[in-house]
Amino acid sequence: MRTVAVVGTGFIGSVHARNVARHPGANLVGVYDANFESARRIADETGCRSVADVAEIFDNRDIEAVVIATPTNTHVEYLQRAALSNKAIYCEKPIGSDYKEAEQAVRAVRATCVPVMLGFNRRFDASHVAVKEAIDKGDVGKVEIVQLTSRGPKPPPISYVKVSGGQLRDQTIHFFDLLRWLTNDEPVEVYAIGAALVDPAIGEAGDVDTSIVSMRMASGALCQIDSSRRTAYGYDERVEVFGSEGMAESARQSFRQLSLYKDRQILRDGLHPGWFERVEPSYYEAIDAFLRSMEKGTPPSPSLEDGLRAQLIADKATESMKTGQAIKI
Amino acid sequence: MRTVAVVGTGFIGSVHARNVARHPGANLVGVYDANFESARRIADETGCRSVADVAEIFDNRDIEAVVIATPTNTHVEYLQRAALSNKAIYCEKPIGSDYKEAEQAVRAVRATCVPVMLGFNRRFDASHVAVKEAIDKGDVGKVEIVQLTSRGPKPPPISYVKVSGGQLRDQTIHFFDLLRWLTNDEPVEVYAIGAALVDPAIGEAGDVDTSIVSMRMASGALCQIDSSRRTAYGYDERVEVFGSEGMAESARQSFRQLSLYKDRQILRDGLHPGWFERVEPSYYEAIDAFLRSMEKGTPPSPSLEDGLRAQLIADKATESMKTGQAIKI
Amino acid sequence: MRTVAVVGTGFIGSVHARNVARHPGANLVGVYDANFESARRIADETGCRSVADVAEIFDNRDIEAVVIATPTNTHVEYLQRAALSNKAIYCEKPIGSDYKEAEQAVRAVRATCVPVMLGFNRRFDASHVAVKEAIDKGDVGKVEIVQLTSRGPKPPPISYVKVSGGQLRDQTIHFFDLLRWLTNDEPVEVYAIGAALVDPAIGEAGDVDTSIVSMRMASGALCQIDSSRRTAYGYDERVEVFGSEGMAESARQSFRQLSLYKDRQILRDGLHPGWFERVEPSYYEAIDAFLRSMEKGTPPSPSLEDGLRAQLIADKATESMKTGQAIKI
Amino acid sequence: MRTVAVVGTGFIGSVHARNVARHPGANLVGVYDANFESARRIADETGCRSVADVAEIFDNRDIEAVVIATPTNTHVEYLQRAALSNKAIYCEKPIGSDYKEAEQAVRAVRATCVPVMLGFNRRFDASHVAVKEAIDKGDVGKVEIVQLTSRGPKPPPISYVKVSGGQLRDQTIHFFDLLRWLTNDEPVEVYAIGAALVDPAIGEAGDVDTSIVSMRMASGALCQIDSSRRTAYGYDERVEVFGSEGMAESARQSFRQLSLYKDRQILRDGLHPGWFERVEPSYYEAIDAFLRSMEKGTPPSPSLEDGLRAQLIADKATESMKTGQAIKI
Repeated sequence: MRTVAVVGTGFIGSVHARNVARHPGANLVGVYDANFESARRIADETGCRSVADVAEIFDNRDIEAVVIATPTNTHVEYLQRAALSNKAIYCEKPIGSDYKEAEQAVRAVRATCVPVMLGFNRRFDASHVAVKEAIDKGDVGKVEIVQLTSRGPKPPPISYVKVSGGQLRDQTIHFFDLLRWLTNDEPVEVYAIGAALVDPAIGEAGDVDTSIVSMRMASGALCQIDSSRRTAYGYDERVEVFGSEGMAESARQSFRQLSLYKDRQILRDGLHPGWFERVEPSYYEAIDAFLRSMEKGTPPSPSLEDGLRAQLIADKATESMKTGQAIKI
Repeated sequence: MRTVAVVGTGFIGSVHARNVARHPGANLVGVYDANFESARRIADETGCRSVADVAEIFDNRDIEAVVIATPTNTHVEYLQRAALSNKAIYCEKPIGSDYKEAEQAVRAVRATCVPVMLGFNRRFDASHVAVKEAIDKGDVGKVEIVQLTSRGPKPPPISYVKVSGGQLRDQTIHFFDLLRWLTNDEPVEVYAIGAALVDPAIGEAGDVDTSIVSMRMASGALCQIDSSRRTAYGYDERVEVFGSEGMAESARQSFRQLSLYKDRQILRDGLHPGWFERVEPSYYEAIDAFLRSMEKGTPPSPSLEDGLRAQLIADKATESMKTGQAIKI
Repeated sequence: MRTVAVVGTGFIGSVHARNVARHPGANLVGVYDANFESARRIADETGCRSVADVAEIFDNRDIEAVVIATPTNTHVEYLQRAALSNKAIYCEKPIGSDYKEAEQAVRAVRATCVPVMLGFNRRFDASHVAVKEAIDKGDVGKVEIVQLTSRGPKPPPISYVKVSGGQLRDQTIHFFDLLRWLTNDEPVEVYAIGAALVDPAIGEAGDVDTSIVSMRMASGALCQIDSSRRTAYGYDERVEVFGSEGMAESARQSFRQLSLYKDRQILRDGLHPGWFERVEPSYYEAIDAFLRSMEKGTPPSPSLEDGLRAQLIADKATESMKTGQAIKI
Repeated sequence: MRTVAVVGTGFIGSVHARNVARHPGANLVGVYDANFESARRIADETGCRSVADVAEIFDNRDIEAVVIATPTNTHVEYLQRAALSNKAIYCEKPIGSDYKEAEQAVRAVRATCVPVMLGFNRRFDASHVAVKEAIDKGDVGKVEIVQLTSRGPKPPPISYVKVSGGQLRDQTIHFFDLLRWLTNDEPVEVYAIGAALVDPAIGEAGDVDTSIVSMRMASGALCQIDSSRRTAYGYDERVEVFGSEGMAESARQSFRQLSLYKDRQILRDGLHPGWFERVEPSYYEAIDAFLRSMEKGTPPSPSLEDGLRAQLIADKATESMKTGQAIKI
């Protein structure tokens, strides 16, 4: 049984707290949030203690691991405090607001040798894992074309858009990570186009809400990611990896399995209403992987370095979109 | 090149005439119909000769094969005339109006030794063939449960219902044949329930429009066939064979492949509007099999005996429905 | 917050205990099992108390509700004790070993007026619920044919088979209940055939492992249920309701969404390995419905009467199978 | 009845000849091929005349329409001869070997005012047509992202590759046309990456076998096309159009509908073995549309201008691939 605390009890922090609480290998001992009421609510629900000062968590030697799920602009500080307190860390993505800040933090944390896992939870989605296994077993052969889709269902508030670093850094970053993980490969060149087709205010804020990124990988494989901030039909995520021996797909998923046959149509239940409903189980799997890595003493994955790489690709793609030029990575 | 004539140019006769005309191994030389105008139209379209007297076909020694596609009550006569004229015969199902009449005709035709193929075209449906192949390869193991669905889309005219022999003899008979063919097995006991749920006039005519037949096969396998004369969603045909090693399905088929994602639904194109659109290619394949059997000199399949067996099962199922008792076959 | 205890901590009892423990509207206060070690393990995991004497639960006035998940032969006793203790009851199906015993218990419990919910959890499966909603909204029109499939994946131990009351009472009973619930209708006549195709020992024990039940409903609709104790491909459950206006299907469900395109095939992830993986979420939904009915003071559903009806149908179907006659219900 | 001749009886010319022959509104009167044996074979099969000199077709005033299906390098000559002979023309794509040659030919043909239809048969694929209809009805809303896939199944001979003008001009051109047709829009900027991942000989010939094209449309929509010359799983074509109100997909199509459930998998029949099997019916529909436009006296579509536009886009995309720069169109 590992003793774990959760720092940050917003939407995702609460998910982590509940998952730790019901995990048979973990003991949730404390939660903290800048909003104490929020922390208290989740403490009541999960039967743990809420603390008013985050130092109570970092200074408590009985706490072996912390989950950092606070706003992005505090990640770097908490990462370093947790590392200096010698705790294993599960940190929500992204590491920091830009690559430079992230890199400095990573250097500092690395020096402490604490294990850190970055919260790219999609690596734990059962169907994406199945694609990865198919690739690693050779079922797909040499990877040649990767197609990733990340859409909707609705744009974040414009206030969030303004500080998000842009669609590629905020939304597409999960798929830059998926791409690297699925292919065991790195993009070496990136070209991106985008537009504010959903909401002109997003364009006025200097961002896009619809984009296509083309990449060439070190192996020669070609890759494409399309992202949209809004769909009219729920949350749409799709992974397709085409290779010399076959093609593996983690398809769009319906929220339920009703088919209604009427007239000239079959009306089937559609996609999950939001991204969380689609990927919810992957959050538990990610925490489970983190706890198992602690148990075995192996380095957790995805690592801080994976977080840095994804951030670098997002930066380069953003640069391409601004300049209209393909950019080497 | 086989010289072929088609007797009967109603809906299905015209289909056969066109298929013979475009088959590279056949030469359509003549068509006959009691309605001469109908014969002339199809003769014009396919570039062959229409005859006013069917004897011109039976007496013509250059004609090697005839397709009989006239109304059921004439099958027995034409079968025997064609057999005595020493022509290979492709005869639409059913052989006759009842088992007894059919059996007498079969006995007479058998004596002539001409090859006869019965028009159970569903045996030539590509996906049903795939199920059969899976069974014969052993992919399904020992067959244990068979489920067949035959529905819609709308009832025939009540005048037709009255002379049809009933739903089981008219509609379900195709599936009694499919069952025997798929399983290489014979039903030994049958129980059937039915009702006139679609149209009370069908009930008043002593028939049903909705039915379920349960059967026990000689091997011990259990089978179920549900039939309806009407659907609200096109023509619905489904084959499912469950066995000790797996399950094979020839699923419902959509007429087109559009998927439209909107709101909480995926709207997919539905089933074919009618039975003909669903099984159309099987008619060409059936004629092709007939011509190939002539080429090779092998007995065509399905045979007259297959036709008799299906008719017997339909009779027994009809008896069960009337008596409320399970009937041995 | 309702205080709840769970009586019986075998496989399903443990599932209920965990679901109660994580439900925000319930407080799991105690668990009991004839095997005290089992109770202690689940008590440790969920953070509640295990009791060595079940009376500690029934006599505890602070406990508002009990979940009965002990072996079937104890249901009747615990139902009555819980009712006399004035607790709300969630009782696993079936009520008793046979209809007569069940009916007596129901009469006794009814007199106490405690709310009782019977554990037909499939009524809470999201996709089956969607079929029910489609029917109730009129999307299917007047129901005419119902087809239910219940298969595998492997037979229970022969010792269990011997005391189970037979396949129809033990396995198919869930689907007798589904049928009534989906159609708001009652079967009035039943015919069943079965065989021991999977394991001869099941036949020697006087039971079957493969069966087909045909039923006629009060409305005139026809229904068919096929059941098998073993599949080669995981747990197979399917619901199809055909009516005058359309057809609704709760289709087979895959455990994951990988599609691998290779050669002439698409290899898709198959069905869940077992029944529990397929219907797991419905257990939480059932407990949730039970707690909400307590909250609102409305009678829980499915009721004891629903349990009795399903038991009666199972008895009549079993009688039909033995006699080879259709039986009125 | 229109009298039609077919010039060129290679693979596609033979398809056209058979389709004209079986079309009830056309009379196939002659076929020509540089290889006279080939012409004679198809003339025998379809019951028309083969001519040794193509002038016999162009000079025959009774022939109202010609189908040009000869090698690309002869299109320009035959287009002009047929136009000067005042015949309606159905011409296989592409118009010519490059945009300049094509444009000159188009200018000459335009002057004669004969109706010309260009053989972009995919516009007549039933499922692609359904996507187009959904867009035109507004079901998709404003188009924002288009994703087209065109793959395999195996590369043409290297001798063909060398004179083909490259993958984008030879293979992807169909999809440039589909894109324009589906969206009623024009690409204004294109970026393309490619590689010879399938066969190094293709790279040595200065071509690619795998490519991704990104485009920005005049409306602001973004588009992506991926092409491969080889798959391990048959012919793979997919159309997806995402918009403000929904998403329409013309999905991959299986050649048959068998599903085999075994172990942890469902083995479904895969894609058509080759492109022809997938799109075969569209050839008949295209000829039918051509004949109907003659009947009505309306200009056929797709037009020569459509052919020119697709050729221009292919040229610009090829230029982008060579320079590594995005190119304005």
